[in-house]
Amino acid sequence: MSLSLPTPADVLAAAQLLKGVVHHTPVLRSTTIDRLFGGELYFKCENLQRTGSFKFRGAYCALAQFDARQRDKGVLAYSSGNHAQAIALAARQHDIPALIVMPDDAALTKLEATRGYGAQVVTYQRGTEDRNTISQRLAAERGMSIVPPSDHPQIIAGHGTAALELLQEVPKLDYLFVPTGGGALLAGSLLAVQAAGSGCEVFGVEPEAADHARQSLKAGHIVTIAHPRTIADAAQSPALAPLAFEIIRKAAPQLLAASDAQMLQALRFLAQRMKLVVEPTGALAFAGARDGGVALHGKRVGIIVSGGNVDLSRYARFISD
Amino acid sequence: MSLSLPTPADVLAAAQLLKGVVHHTPVLRSTTIDRLFGGELYFKCENLQRTGSFKFRGAYCALAQFDARQRDKGVLAYSSGNHAQAIALAARQHDIPALIVMPDDAALTKLEATRGYGAQVVTYQRGTEDRNTISQRLAAERGMSIVPPSDHPQIIAGHGTAALELLQEVPKLDYLFVPTGGGALLAGSLLAVQAAGSGCEVFGVEPEAADHARQSLKAGHIVTIAHPRTIADAAQSPALAPLAFEIIRKAAPQLLAASDAQMLQALRFLAQRMKLVVEPTGALAFAGARDGGVALHGKRVGIIVSGGNVDLSRYARFISD
Repeated sequence: MSLSLPTPADVLAAAQLLKGVVHHTPVLRSTTIDRLFGGELYFKCENLQRTGSFKFRGAYCALAQFDARQRDKGVLAYSSGNHAQAIALAARQHDIPALIVMPDDAALTKLEATRGYGAQVVTYQRGTEDRNTISQRLAAERGMSIVPPSDHPQIIAGHGTAALELLQEVPKLDYLFVPTGGGALLAGSLLAVQAAGSGCEVFGVEPEAADHARQSLKAGHIVTIAHPRTIADAAQSPALAPLAFEIIRKAAPQLLAASDAQMLQALRFLAQRMKLVVEPTGALAFAGARDGGVALHGKRVGIIVSGGNVDLSRYARFISD
Repeated sequence: MSLSLPTPADVLAAAQLLKGVVHHTPVLRSTTIDRLFGGELYFKCENLQRTGSFKFRGAYCALAQFDARQRDKGVLAYSSGNHAQAIALAARQHDIPALIVMPDDAALTKLEATRGYGAQVVTYQRGTEDRNTISQRLAAERGMSIVPPSDHPQIIAGHGTAALELLQEVPKLDYLFVPTGGGALLAGSLLAVQAAGSGCEVFGVEPEAADHARQSLKAGHIVTIAHPRTIADAAQSPALAPLAFEIIRKAAPQLLAASDAQMLQALRFLAQRMKLVVEPTGALAFAGARDGGVALHGKRVGIIVSGGNVDLSRYARFISD
């Protein structure tokens, strides 16, 4: 597995690979929202992607690179969320055994979904055990290959295909807002903009409490925020992945931050006006577009709605607050 | 305005008229749902239609038939729900004045949405005043044309375009499940199946407490249920519209009924698995498909998700029960 930086050509190759495998998710619009903002807003609905988030794109691409031995031994991933489900389904489709290391307090629906896709799940105690140590040990014992959620060229290239689809469907986008955690989606989207030959300006949007990308670009090196606390659980990673950082540093997109309250407002707006169930991170890019101080008037604006995996009881609280 | 029965050709003509006007709504699928049912389920997402329901289709077609005098004087509609918003937006697009008669206890979001589309709203007291009397009086005073929610050939033909789009996108459907209240959507869908030359079997699904279509087909005449009580507020009409009844009687589709509890289960399922916000009536067809005793194994099954207009606080209760 190459650890060189992925390129725009890799995003185009990933798009070929994913044809007929991923849902070509719909791009939705709302006249009412356009009137409110005075621009044209295009929502790329990756909450409607298989496994409920864009993560399936990169996961499938990463496993497609496995050689015969790797395929035989299987894949290991550690994740409490969308990456787990994505690897589980991708592994089933590639006919590769999958072992997912999840905290024992992970949402029951996520445990069930991951098992439902045919993966074996090993749980650990979040407080007393270290998932990296457990994962490394299990991978070594079983000869399995670990696929990390962000720091992987094929993950980045695969994730970039969501933005590529949007850019191909809606030419002449002025702005693209991308939710940002470990940075693979943002990095892939930046490559996609280059691949599409688009002059589109990209904005990465981070949770306010996890704005390490903004800090990292400023510092010129990767800044870590040990335990960021935000409702955006899918963008809660402590730092950018090194590969993603390299791409983001070179492309130097603008970075915005959204508070939990702004995400909740955006989440409710998407429910009320767009009839979409999104998880908090799924509303992150829209929150940045709404409240980030960027003038949208007269602009064609793409927004990546990244995922919709949220327990209904938690979601009910979000929309009734 | 002709009151003759609409034909399959009228649905095809309506589809031409609506090109570029309505959203060509996405047809969504879920591998998990397909595995559960052993068939291929295709969800036609009219909750993602403009104004949040399929009603905009027929409303636009009905107003397109107005002559110069009618256009000048305007349209009047009485509705507490989706028809109100549909007529309001269609009128704005046709540049026709619109007056909507709504109960004063209608949901604030619906009043606001209707006004937001530029319509004038007149409210009445549901207990003490009769909306028909008020509407007739206002229409006479102002020379306005009343467009009813169901009993209108262009409404029926326009509504049929949702099923037509589905049948054209997914050929060889075996079954099509359609939510049924006043009957215009079911009648239009039956015409669409004929227009598409499809052998698809159509199932109308009614709320258990408002199963007047089933009773009417059995009796051979229109049966009225005075005040049906169901959470499916958009399918709460007391009887089939006469034009719809004629079409439904001739085509003789199978009719199923779903309880409120079954609708709620289907609504939650659509939130959890499909990431879609739907109103109770929007889950009615899927409830019929799930629980109506029809074997879906090995079948290609279309399901019309009719709408998503529901107050978030009410929706939060539905998904947290």
